[in-house]
Amino acid sequence: MNTNKTYAERAARHPNACAKQLFELMERKKTNLSVAADVTTKKELLAVADAVGPFVCVLKTHIDIVEDFDQDLVDQLVALSKKHDFLIFEDRKFADIGNTVKHQYGKGIYKIASWSHITNAHTVPGEGIISGLREVGLPLGRGIILLAEMSTKGALTQGAYTTESVAMARRNQDFVFGFIAQHKMNESDDEDFVVMAPGVGLDVVGDSLGQQYRTPHQVILESGCDVIIVGRGIYGKPDEIEAQATRYREAGWNAYLERVRQHQ
Amino acid sequence: MNTNKTYAERAARHPNACAKQLFELMERKKTNLSVAADVTTKKELLAVADAVGPFVCVLKTHIDIVEDFDQDLVDQLVALSKKHDFLIFEDRKFADIGNTVKHQYGKGIYKIASWSHITNAHTVPGEGIISGLREVGLPLGRGIILLAEMSTKGALTQGAYTTESVAMARRNQDFVFGFIAQHKMNESDDEDFVVMAPGVGLDVVGDSLGQQYRTPHQVILESGCDVIIVGRGIYGKPDEIEAQATRYREAGWNAYLERVRQHQ
Repeated sequence: MNTNKTYAERAARHPNACAKQLFELMERKKTNLSVAADVTTKKELLAVADAVGPFVCVLKTHIDIVEDFDQDLVDQLVALSKKHDFLIFEDRKFADIGNTVKHQYGKGIYKIASWSHITNAHTVPGEGIISGLREVGLPLGRGIILLAEMSTKGALTQGAYTTESVAMARRNQDFVFGFIAQHKMNESDDEDFVVMAPGVGLDVVGDSLGQQYRTPHQVILESGCDVIIVGRGIYGKPDEIEAQATRYREAGWNAYLERVRQHQ
Repeated sequence: MNTNKTYAERAARHPNACAKQLFELMERKKTNLSVAADVTTKKELLAVADAVGPFVCVLKTHIDIVEDFDQDLVDQLVALSKKHDFLIFEDRKFADIGNTVKHQYGKGIYKIASWSHITNAHTVPGEGIISGLREVGLPLGRGIILLAEMSTKGALTQGAYTTESVAMARRNQDFVFGFIAQHKMNESDDEDFVVMAPGVGLDVVGDSLGQQYRTPHQVILESGCDVIIVGRGIYGKPDEIEAQATRYREAGWNAYLERVRQHQ
């Protein structure tokens, strides 16, 4: 089972360029931490990116909540991703028909495909969404992950929905390299999906709008996810960013080391 | 069954301000036609809005595919909606957790809630998505519709997914007034959801990215939908816009009149 191998071993064998790049980076920086930068100004987003940059493998953005977005923000984000060696993951959650997402991904004000290494899509519109995104992203060396499970209360990503989503990913492994999910999705030795888990926290249980949290230990060791996504737990208090990023990075990495150790 | 009453009767009794406004407008202009303006420049979007304006009840936009979006585009769209008497429906297909969609709806570059009378949301993240959007939209008199069914091949909006989506709408009728769907959703006399049907065409069967089409007769008369959404079939050929808009408006309105007649 690829889930239980080292990130380096998985990088060496992975057929998807984007996944390979990610696993190599994780091994090189010794981190499986992703920070979700849910801030609404350019200044804050760049500050968070620069502060957490040394600790993360992936910076997750919501570019469309930034009030003063401009092209310079993108240029600076890309520069920070090179400076600190992380990938950018625009958490767009595409959810439209193929012909529309093609435009949303490649065009408009944001031109997401031009700067975001990874993005994601819901499977609810059917497989056409993957075909539409692929037309734009694959020539640029991008990859996408699918939302097979959500961590919110009452999410409809269950049963047949999840099964179908995984089947879509299996049929599109040239472009789809993983999932947003709460547990590992690999079922056979010939597949190696990267699972990124949102809703990770060490100190909180939930918020008032339905989000529910689990610990790095739970998501990496018990559930077999590969990347932990943490939000305000890390940058909520500006003077604690470095300490919290270190804390989460260690929690995630130790859980991963323990997983590898248990399966050697 | 409210579905089979006139739009005027439904306007008179509807508890939701946004739905009431829509039904009144439909009756006043004698149209159940919505045009999906899937164009990528400000100039084209304004041209389509001005040309189809007299014929539609709702102009459906994808603001995030417009390459040269600016605040002036919004100002001009709002002016056209007043000039021609139509509502704007930003087809954003929100699909994130409550705390994120709140920002995506009210903030960022687009500030969708400030100008779009109607928007829509997927139910896949669970009911928190409605709570998040409501916090922003309800104070502004906005309403949302949910995606209970999609017209694309292999869409996962079926079975329990659709049932759960309708249940969420029933529990949130102060803010949710309808659906994007392929058939009527009303089951009892005390509910009156507006159903807007995409994928409507008189001349085409499908595209290469999974979209499938049905006629106004099928969606209004046979399936009990309320608004037909038509795209390039209307504005694909610039010199035929008026003729095609007239044709679809008549097809949709006649199907509606026939439905009312059959149930008198």
